[in-house]
Amino acid sequence: MSYAKQMLDTTPSSFEFDAAALAECIAACFDCAQACSACADACLGEEMVAELRKCIRLDLDCADVCAATGRVLSRQTAYDATITTAVLTACAAACKACGDECASHAQMHDHCRICAEACRRCAQACNALLGQS
Amino acid sequence: MSYAKQMLDTTPSSFEFDAAALAECIAACFDCAQACSACADACLGEEMVAELRKCIRLDLDCADVCAATGRVLSRQTAYDATITTAVLTACAAACKACGDECASHAQMHDHCRICAEACRRCAQACNALLGQS
Amino acid sequence: MSYAKQMLDTTPSSFEFDAAALAECIAACFDCAQACSACADACLGEEMVAELRKCIRLDLDCADVCAATGRVLSRQTAYDATITTAVLTACAAACKACGDECASHAQMHDHCRICAEACRRCAQACNALLGQS
Amino acid sequence: MSYAKQMLDTTPSSFEFDAAALAECIAACFDCAQACSACADACLGEEMVAELRKCIRLDLDCADVCAATGRVLSRQTAYDATITTAVLTACAAACKACGDECASHAQMHDHCRICAEACRRCAQACNALLGQS
Repeated sequence: MSYAKQMLDTTPSSFEFDAAALAECIAACFDCAQACSACADACLGEEMVAELRKCIRLDLDCADVCAATGRVLSRQTAYDATITTAVLTACAAACKACGDECASHAQMHDHCRICAEACRRCAQACNALLGQS
Repeated sequence: MSYAKQMLDTTPSSFEFDAAALAECIAACFDCAQACSACADACLGEEMVAELRKCIRLDLDCADVCAATGRVLSRQTAYDATITTAVLTACAAACKACGDECASHAQMHDHCRICAEACRRCAQACNALLGQS
Repeated sequence: MSYAKQMLDTTPSSFEFDAAALAECIAACFDCAQACSACADACLGEEMVAELRKCIRLDLDCADVCAATGRVLSRQTAYDATITTAVLTACAAACKACGDECASHAQMHDHCRICAEACRRCAQACNALLGQS
Repeated sequence: MSYAKQMLDTTPSSFEFDAAALAECIAACFDCAQACSACADACLGEEMVAELRKCIRLDLDCADVCAATGRVLSRQTAYDATITTAVLTACAAACKACGDECASHAQMHDHCRICAEACRRCAQACNALLGQS
């Protein structure tokens, strides 16, 4: 079981979302932040780095937005629906943009293929929570 | 002149926003991230910490969202309007919620009064950019 | 297989560490950042929050240091041994301090018990890499 | 007066460092995190991006380490000397490495010249606090 799920199971605070969907979204945000940071670095190491500028930039943005979203969702004490909805919306948008860009390089660069998977999983998890809120 | 403005003046990439408004928003995001981190810690040090849970939680959220927004705005190569708009919207929401909460303690805690100022300046700067996009 | 391992398997850049140890450390850093963020929030939600100030503060520090370390380790292009060693040392120190504090509350708070596990795993993974560098 | 100084003046917690030196280091960390994020992006936008890989990588590392250090230093409740010293040491190392690299491009790229200034100021501020601890 992920730490995210274990922490939700043991917090004294109640939360608004289904626990499994929330734990999945938290884990997906942290995983996607890692994959995007690594993909930006892998793109930087490619010979054709000049053609990967857009991918690097979206990777860096997506990593930052996923990291912030994963932290906000890890807090359930004194829940604020407005912030949560706005952050999930931004995260879904960043994961969509970055995932689409990475998917367009997926046949040439395996790191982009893997990163596109991480982005899509995270976008889905964010949208699942937005559907509950 | 802030580093944010100097960096915008020397980047080879073009950008979509008025340079002064963009530099102000970047600086406001980093300043607000600092003020909110410090306010969460100051609240934690107060005797009445149990009554400041909501304030601490919003401070932590606002710090994370401002930090991510300041980084996204610091990137102008391969600009993505969708991500930028979603991130600015989330940041304005976080600053509004945190600033309102801090303002409600402003007479009792000077650190909340200062943090509320930082939040309002950042919310205004985000809204100014949203008005241009 | 973790995204961290998959990304290391597909980066064009070479790296200095054993791939399995590096992937474990990256995953441990991101997992520990999540657990510490959640533990700070769970402590904030406890009735006895005033007695958990030190734990909350160490959780927040450890979350930030682990997040930075996980990102630095996710980059292998143009490796810099000095930064990597200094960051791993700081991360091991933060995880030791936070893990010891959380362990001292482990019988009372299950979230502290789980967080202590995450901290110890991360400290071990950092020390394993330091032993290779 | 910076928010960092105002927040230190109003926190209920005592702190171990000279207030002016601590406020300067906090502000320098946040400013350097911004400058490094912007410099990585500006380098990415340069035609000769392939020759700037090392600079981009060090910019990204330095931004992450400075951001974590600025947050740790913004917390003074339940001060932990071991973490603080380790984090300041890592930050000084990252700023030295990034500042040296940026300085070597300073005549060709004004953004690297400005970023080198931000790195040197931050390294000095970290070393000043290390001298007090």
